[in-house]
Amino acid sequence: MVRLNKEDYAHHLIELLNKNENHLFRESFLQLHPTDQAEYCINLEKEQRQTLYHMLDPEEMANVFQALDLHEQKDIILELDQPYASEMVTHLYTDDAADLLSQLNKSEAHALLKAMDLEDANDVYELMAYPPKTAGALMTKEFISLASSHNAQQAIEQLREEAPNAETIYYLYVVNEREQLVGVVSLRDLLTAQSNEVIQNLMSSRVVSVDSVTKQEEVAKIIKKYNFLAAPVVSSDGTLLGIVTVDDVIDVLEDEATEDLGEFTAARGATDIHVSAFTAAKLRSPWIVLLMFFGLLTAGVIEQFEETLNQIILLAAFIPLLMGSAGNAGTQSLAVVVRGLALGTLEKKGLLRTLFKEFCTGMMIGFICAMTLLLIIPIFYGSFMVAVVVGISIFCSLSVATIVGATVPLIIHKLKIDPAFASGPFITTVNDILGLLIYFTIATSLLHYL
Amino acid sequence: MVRLNKEDYAHHLIELLNKNENHLFRESFLQLHPTDQAEYCINLEKEQRQTLYHMLDPEEMANVFQALDLHEQKDIILELDQPYASEMVTHLYTDDAADLLSQLNKSEAHALLKAMDLEDANDVYELMAYPPKTAGALMTKEFISLASSHNAQQAIEQLREEAPNAETIYYLYVVNEREQLVGVVSLRDLLTAQSNEVIQNLMSSRVVSVDSVTKQEEVAKIIKKYNFLAAPVVSSDGTLLGIVTVDDVIDVLEDEATEDLGEFTAARGATDIHVSAFTAAKLRSPWIVLLMFFGLLTAGVIEQFEETLNQIILLAAFIPLLMGSAGNAGTQSLAVVVRGLALGTLEKKGLLRTLFKEFCTGMMIGFICAMTLLLIIPIFYGSFMVAVVVGISIFCSLSVATIVGATVPLIIHKLKIDPAFASGPFITTVNDILGLLIYFTIATSLLHYL
Repeated sequence: MVRLNKEDYAHHLIELLNKNENHLFRESFLQLHPTDQAEYCINLEKEQRQTLYHMLDPEEMANVFQALDLHEQKDIILELDQPYASEMVTHLYTDDAADLLSQLNKSEAHALLKAMDLEDANDVYELMAYPPKTAGALMTKEFISLASSHNAQQAIEQLREEAPNAETIYYLYVVNEREQLVGVVSLRDLLTAQSNEVIQNLMSSRVVSVDSVTKQEEVAKIIKKYNFLAAPVVSSDGTLLGIVTVDDVIDVLEDEATEDLGEFTAARGATDIHVSAFTAAKLRSPWIVLLMFFGLLTAGVIEQFEETLNQIILLAAFIPLLMGSAGNAGTQSLAVVVRGLALGTLEKKGLLRTLFKEFCTGMMIGFICAMTLLLIIPIFYGSFMVAVVVGISIFCSLSVATIVGATVPLIIHKLKIDPAFASGPFITTVNDILGLLIYFTIATSLLHYL
Repeated sequence: MVRLNKEDYAHHLIELLNKNENHLFRESFLQLHPTDQAEYCINLEKEQRQTLYHMLDPEEMANVFQALDLHEQKDIILELDQPYASEMVTHLYTDDAADLLSQLNKSEAHALLKAMDLEDANDVYELMAYPPKTAGALMTKEFISLASSHNAQQAIEQLREEAPNAETIYYLYVVNEREQLVGVVSLRDLLTAQSNEVIQNLMSSRVVSVDSVTKQEEVAKIIKKYNFLAAPVVSSDGTLLGIVTVDDVIDVLEDEATEDLGEFTAARGATDIHVSAFTAAKLRSPWIVLLMFFGLLTAGVIEQFEETLNQIILLAAFIPLLMGSAGNAGTQSLAVVVRGLALGTLEKKGLLRTLFKEFCTGMMIGFICAMTLLLIIPIFYGSFMVAVVVGISIFCSLSVATIVGATVPLIIHKLKIDPAFASGPFITTVNDILGLLIYFTIATSLLHYL
């Protein structure tokens, strides 16, 4: 058999679809990984997709559907006729169904829920009731739970039956008669055990679990820390409610990381690309305006030194350079410390040592910049004394800027206050004000030499 | 049995350790998850750790060891005596052993390799030879490969035998007689299959694999996209070489995300907290100096308008405010676009539409800022005309700044050139120069009204 590459295979599939070769199409299409099926589905023309829906049964379509992005799911569900859509939704994992239904309007969601069997619908309702971005909202109900009194053979039998509907079969959770989580067995241990070994003896009873109201970042951290494929979610009385799987956690981690970009750039909570310009302006302008008010402080500082500036107008030319350099040095330190906090490598190093190191780094970079400017400014701007003022200022302000850049996130971290205030723009503004004060103080005191 | 919390359990363990209660200690300690065992181990005093090494055999210690961070492993390995360390290393997964040995000096690494059996040592050598940050360097050799002619029952038998030494048993890779990857079976499908079903019929032959030289970010993207627990790594002729597991990939994703912070802040490749101040300065100063040279351009722009500035010295006071606001608006747009690119949501939206939207957002934010300043500047600085100049300038430069902030990363992305040039500081510098030109051009042309 000649193995086709991805593009040729897609082309081959479209031909079969257009010729309405039901049997051949299905055989080739169902060979694909659901992720590829979904990619293929979303790239079809709308009419071709209708043919696709006819060729796949709702259960097969559920596999395709689950691999789509949420906003793609929203579009596709509206293309399906009602009975087909309802049946498909019953084949979705409960977490996916809950995510989808919470995106639809009430009447659409209600119509789909009504068509589901009662138990499934209750599970979906339950998940939709958890606060967003918690373990409860992230988890799925399709887990496998064992009785501790069964033996390995019985457990494997149960597994064989339930495997097709479970989201993961690689961890098996052991519950008591009140559905409380008491242990966990990995499928690996179960397979390598003697068939008459009792689960009670196989399971690990010190099982790591998360609470249903635990924040999703916390869940992600635990799964990452323990290299888990899934983590069990329990209620306050220890009842096993569901599981969070590693693939959902990867999305959370990625989402958090790109959200951090927003925090770093005063675009906090406003980096979503799917909003209108008006909404974006509404979300983003408060940060810009707030920072502009801080900027007015810099105007105030400069105005205080109008006298100095009036005598040496050339001093104004180096304001952006000085502030830019201090800002960059400060955000470098910020990046180092934030990264250290994120990766957990900082705590172990000792905070004071880190601050001192950043200060030394700032002095060294400041020294290099000062020497460079002492060479360049006299050549291009003809004033050695201005070069001295700018040089000393850049040395001092870079040293200070690294301290500010490193200290602010540490304080934020210790006090657990809103980390937005540790973001680049705030630190830059603080450094701007300090830098200008240093600059004009030095300039004013050296005025009679200039 | 009373269930102890984590602190009490640790306390209980230390007591047993101090009393040298070998049997009881082992029973309690081995109940813990390796991640917790590692945390416990690293928090002990050095002498207590020596007792721990006596109580655990090298294989048990290997489990603890694997859960440590690389820099912790480096410290611990030097505490172990040579024969114990060598035996422990033979029980590590090959990827962990390779990572560790590449951190040690040559003679230490050589001594450990010599003590390993030839096959294991060869595997470790092989992994150490791959370029860093590639699939080859990330993968482990402990995978399970099946023959396509075996049946489900035989495969499960093989699995039972090999499971204890495999890094994951949840995907089983099917190879032909030349060790080439021809298919994959999930353990789930294997368990639910009839016992006499042949692997050939169970396996999926369209298996997604990565090349040994594929970059680790690429591998992470594929595993994330397909929700894989592991991905097979093949040589150029299709030979199965190893597997990359999802837990390694999470570390890669996290590492990349925090590295992005570096790119965003001109601290590229220099956010490692474990370097000396001197090294940090050496890595970070080139960016600061390079950006300072761009800053000299802003000095040049201001100098060109010295005449204007000489007449209205108050104009200098608003330079930082204007540039700061344009910089913030530009990095907001940058964050939106970078996030869109990272999450893959941007391509589907249409690039021109995104640019236009950012432009509209910039104009709206600019308008709000301009109105605010038109109110405030006359009150605090007594000049309505300066307020008009600053107001018009902030409106224009914010509109331009969003375009620059959104366009630069898109161009970078299209041209696949070094993304460092899309980082915040570069965009801010471009916006600084444009903002100053706008400001002083408007001021100069309105000069006779001022």
